[in-house]
Amino acid sequence: MSERGIGMATDIAEQPGVYATLLEPARLSAISQIAKVIAERRPQHVVFTARGTSDHAALYAAYLTEIRLGLPAGLASPSAITVFGARPDLSNALVVGVSQSGGSPDLTEVLRVAREQGALTLAVTNNPESPLVNTAELSIDVAAGHERAVAATKTYTAELLALLLLVESIAGGGSLGADELAELAKLPELAEQTLADTTPAQLAPRYRFADRVVTTGRGYAYPGAREAALKLMETSYIAALAFSGADLLHGPLAMTDPDVPVLALVGAGLGGAAMKDVLARLGERRADVVTVGPEGTLRVPGVDERYAPLLEILPLQKLALEIALGRGENPDAPRGLKKVTETL
Amino acid sequence: MSERGIGMATDIAEQPGVYATLLEPARLSAISQIAKVIAERRPQHVVFTARGTSDHAALYAAYLTEIRLGLPAGLASPSAITVFGARPDLSNALVVGVSQSGGSPDLTEVLRVAREQGALTLAVTNNPESPLVNTAELSIDVAAGHERAVAATKTYTAELLALLLLVESIAGGGSLGADELAELAKLPELAEQTLADTTPAQLAPRYRFADRVVTTGRGYAYPGAREAALKLMETSYIAALAFSGADLLHGPLAMTDPDVPVLALVGAGLGGAAMKDVLARLGERRADVVTVGPEGTLRVPGVDERYAPLLEILPLQKLALEIALGRGENPDAPRGLKKVTETL
Repeated sequence: MSERGIGMATDIAEQPGVYATLLEPARLSAISQIAKVIAERRPQHVVFTARGTSDHAALYAAYLTEIRLGLPAGLASPSAITVFGARPDLSNALVVGVSQSGGSPDLTEVLRVAREQGALTLAVTNNPESPLVNTAELSIDVAAGHERAVAATKTYTAELLALLLLVESIAGGGSLGADELAELAKLPELAEQTLADTTPAQLAPRYRFADRVVTTGRGYAYPGAREAALKLMETSYIAALAFSGADLLHGPLAMTDPDVPVLALVGAGLGGAAMKDVLARLGERRADVVTVGPEGTLRVPGVDERYAPLLEILPLQKLALEIALGRGENPDAPRGLKKVTETL
Repeated sequence: MSERGIGMATDIAEQPGVYATLLEPARLSAISQIAKVIAERRPQHVVFTARGTSDHAALYAAYLTEIRLGLPAGLASPSAITVFGARPDLSNALVVGVSQSGGSPDLTEVLRVAREQGALTLAVTNNPESPLVNTAELSIDVAAGHERAVAATKTYTAELLALLLLVESIAGGGSLGADELAELAKLPELAEQTLADTTPAQLAPRYRFADRVVTTGRGYAYPGAREAALKLMETSYIAALAFSGADLLHGPLAMTDPDVPVLALVGAGLGGAAMKDVLARLGERRADVVTVGPEGTLRVPGVDERYAPLLEILPLQKLALEIALGRGENPDAPRGLKKVTETL
């Protein structure tokens, strides 16, 4: 057995390279082909279906779809179809399954039914040979390579980037504009810079005895808050609760006090600005708030708000890894979990 | 100031009466009118928008919509519209805002934009004079009466029942069938029976020192798991994490151990059957599981799976109240919260 956490640490470190791979011309061209097919078919709304980490990538894509494409987007509960036998009319829908393994039977069943019900179907996975890919009409390979740890890191950000490239290609009439490409091309280097920061390791000991954590963000940043919470649960067994900034004020705020650590994603754009009120209310409750962002304790370079999720999660992945190691856990193989989760 | 918790206890006790009110012929007829308008307009998909407790009622309605009406349904993130200025084409959509107060500016803005974007809009609230009602084309008054405690209880179940009556009326071509009406008419009495059980008060001391709780359920029962978690957070400041049974297996399962209490909603129908596997995995982790259902420790009468959420939440509301009282808290006025939460 190798050193504890070496798998997760390696996965995390590979993310700049994963971004570079997805930005290679051949990959962009493959995504552009898919974008053109979708644009031609003119779906009237988009339904995402996913579980766990991939559900957070799907949520990010739902925000992008609504804001950038002006198409209503939502996340489907697979059980409506797989357990309760729902057969919704999906003839005007694009249904997107997002899954690292492409192997969960419930997602495959949702895509099979969706196709039968007239939807245009797309699989976004890290396994081009998977049942999900074989079931969907279209597929995108997120090309993250083999992931060592059970807790997903590089497959998450690869899904984010692939979905961003897809949505922006559709928005651009089938391909990305030159300006946008130039901005995106900076991401591998910016990810390297972000990962070089040693603050997460310095901060981790503060959380040695934390039994709960609240994570929060708004808009594009909210899926990252949820993903950070899941990493803390999976690797360090912390009760980590994620809320959109607005939902936090509708009830869960009562739970926060000076002994509840809060990790708040506060970017440079509209979503970050909308967090001001949330931070003020957390301040009134004297919560212990650590922020992630261009002005944050966990520093990430300032980029367009749509790209920020590709950077904001990086220090949080490192923080989860370091907290787990500090507790003597092995984040590569959390208790009770396997890499491919099969749910029905 | 009145006795601690008397407001919440009174709200909880009034729920059978609230069910009876909503089942009065005049109320059913008002809902039937709305159902007919919706059926005529033939929306191709349904978008729900809500916050906090009402978000859980909306999630229940989304399951119902998909399963009973065969229409794709999803929950919208208000911020896409209110913060990021998304203007999705909603000309084939029914957009439903669910809110106890009808007073949150973000939901009103979502309905305003949705109407502008061609959607058929419906407000479901406990305040027929609210901005949300004035903004939407259609509205349903859930008629729960004044709610005393900040933590919502009877407005939640009133929203559930109103949404159930709406969906079933649409499914029935504009009104409820005689058989269904006969079954629904039993709900006030079944709710009385459920509330008469003293098990929640007997069980509460076990959780005196719990700092976290996991709640779980599948399908129609999942929104109740989320609502139970929110009640525990709001009233007892417990870190309560809710997962659909399937999502629990995709990561958070690692967090469970013999010291993590699990509250599992296990009904008599398909959703309950789909929990078998989840209970087995929790058993492997030696989690402390208390079940809610016809066979559960927290006993609720066996009814059609669609109706069960109207009963399953009752012992969990009582449990949250009793735990809060046992901790010396006042569940009527949780720290840091107001009755109407205004988010943008």
